[in-house]
Amino acid sequence: MPVLSADDVVHICEAMFEATGVSKEDAKIVGEHIARANLCGHDSHGIQNVSRLVGLLRKGAINPRGKWKVKKETPATALIDGDWALGQAVVTSALNIAIDKAKTTGVGAVSIFNCSHIGRLGDYTNTIAERGMIGMLYANSLPGVAAFGGKTRVLGTNPISYAFPTDDEPIMMDFATSIVAEGKVRAALHKGLQIPVGWILDRDGKATTNPADLYSKPGEPMSAGGSLLPAAGHKGYSLAVGVDILAGALTGSGMSGEIKSGNGVFLQAINIESFSTIEDYKAHVGKLIVNLKNASVANGFEEILLPGEPELRSKQKRLSDGIPIPESTWDELVKTASDIGVSLPTPIVS
Amino acid sequence: MPVLSADDVVHICEAMFEATGVSKEDAKIVGEHIARANLCGHDSHGIQNVSRLVGLLRKGAINPRGKWKVKKETPATALIDGDWALGQAVVTSALNIAIDKAKTTGVGAVSIFNCSHIGRLGDYTNTIAERGMIGMLYANSLPGVAAFGGKTRVLGTNPISYAFPTDDEPIMMDFATSIVAEGKVRAALHKGLQIPVGWILDRDGKATTNPADLYSKPGEPMSAGGSLLPAAGHKGYSLAVGVDILAGALTGSGMSGEIKSGNGVFLQAINIESFSTIEDYKAHVGKLIVNLKNASVANGFEEILLPGEPELRSKQKRLSDGIPIPESTWDELVKTASDIGVSLPTPIVS
Repeated sequence: MPVLSADDVVHICEAMFEATGVSKEDAKIVGEHIARANLCGHDSHGIQNVSRLVGLLRKGAINPRGKWKVKKETPATALIDGDWALGQAVVTSALNIAIDKAKTTGVGAVSIFNCSHIGRLGDYTNTIAERGMIGMLYANSLPGVAAFGGKTRVLGTNPISYAFPTDDEPIMMDFATSIVAEGKVRAALHKGLQIPVGWILDRDGKATTNPADLYSKPGEPMSAGGSLLPAAGHKGYSLAVGVDILAGALTGSGMSGEIKSGNGVFLQAINIESFSTIEDYKAHVGKLIVNLKNASVANGFEEILLPGEPELRSKQKRLSDGIPIPESTWDELVKTASDIGVSLPTPIVS
Repeated sequence: MPVLSADDVVHICEAMFEATGVSKEDAKIVGEHIARANLCGHDSHGIQNVSRLVGLLRKGAINPRGKWKVKKETPATALIDGDWALGQAVVTSALNIAIDKAKTTGVGAVSIFNCSHIGRLGDYTNTIAERGMIGMLYANSLPGVAAFGGKTRVLGTNPISYAFPTDDEPIMMDFATSIVAEGKVRAALHKGLQIPVGWILDRDGKATTNPADLYSKPGEPMSAGGSLLPAAGHKGYSLAVGVDILAGALTGSGMSGEIKSGNGVFLQAINIESFSTIEDYKAHVGKLIVNLKNASVANGFEEILLPGEPELRSKQKRLSDGIPIPESTWDELVKTASDIGVSLPTPIVS
């Protein structure tokens, strides 16, 4: 399998995005986002998306020269028109605005509409936390999840991410409000595995363990497929409704049932020093970490992990061993690169 | 069973709290909070707590004359010392501060320490939503919940509540980040019922369906009991960690493992007009409501309810039929009232 370094991933992204007309600056931001997704083990948001993104940029579904604009602003808030530029570049600018506002007012809240897919939520909140503030992000998306008590798609997987500074790496959580992210069902499908009862309903609203039942057949609209179930019943359902309102109604992006593509986004940066001192805050968080790490481990587990720790471990491993790229992803990249006249680095093949 | 009107509940609370030295104003605020909890069907936060609260007020564990103070302030934030006054009164003041700040800056965020138990979270966020803003509240509490992968108590049930204005009553969600609130296990215990596998672990970390296994034996510390499990595994666990940091570390209240009583609280009011217009916002939310209500209903359900709708239905019913009070609660109230020289109204007995 080809293996790339994180730098390789960044450089491939830069070359391919720039070849479609994206600015040097945005291409770098998005390339680094994609490389970090691969490093953290979230390959669904990694380099496997680049060929698809290049296709969307070439046909103008993503605007290579899009320039976000602040459409409305108060001391603590901003509403941003993302101009359908690459979502990762827009959110990166938005989080800088949120941090700047939080420096002055204590909290910065930014909402974004006309926003292409933003990639991995946890990357943005983690960046906010690395810069010393608490990060929160909510995103809505096309419907794929049933309501609690329903059996058809009405809500997106509407994920939430929070990240918190600590004395070491941030505590970071990033999860779909559905019982699992759609990618886990797709992964089971690709591996020919069954999924547990309670993950999805088929198109008739019946429980099923066949991952293929989530998807529509060739030629059908996506909406003809089955539906994911909300996490923890009414709790995940309620959170999905909340995320839909924050990311869809407050931003004007539209609700899960209205949006055509991309994500509605609502994010916040919270300035710890407006409430406490960094030292006191970190001392409290440190006690929580010690309590969690010292708690007795349940049967079937080897240890208790902090939210975000699996990503950190993947990052350490892949920084040293490189990022494995499935043959099919590599072949697709080679073809896309050739189409747009970009030459790729030669990967190590292991 | 004795039946009281909501006004009766308010008047009983006012009389009993004033008799212990609480100000007329605070007694009214807390009485109204308690009556609304009963109206909404959340009896665990209703009048059944009054005898216990009177006991805590009389021995000074809750400060009858406590006066909250703003200890730190920025344009969008405030840190409040609750002075161990009745928590419901402190949070009611805090949400007014958050709303006032959000009017000016777009967002208001308030954290509270030295805060006695605050009662029902959804009451505060609902109040913020009734006043036209989005309300968010996070509270931590004594440990009762295991980490994901753990088998001992390390986190509180650390609930979250959000509420959102609509054209009609607010959409309101209020839930523990554990798989169920502790009250549901207690209710099963009182009714002599078993609970499903996956709700709790016993004191040895083993799965059990006996609700008694959650609790310590007489004479043992509470911490000797079993533990609740987080909702949806790592998702509820992550949220509980996030709530602990927001409500415990940011406020200085201390983490679940540090606090001795009461709740750490972090709340926010978000001004919709800083991002959108109320009309556009409500039009989007209205479309979501129509989509949810029109979705096909799953087997075993009669209809799809919006978050907060069960509470509204209970309120309508109890406003017309009155609030049923268990004999044991009424007997305890009669005894407490007699101890402090308060005369109770004569309830209807049905």
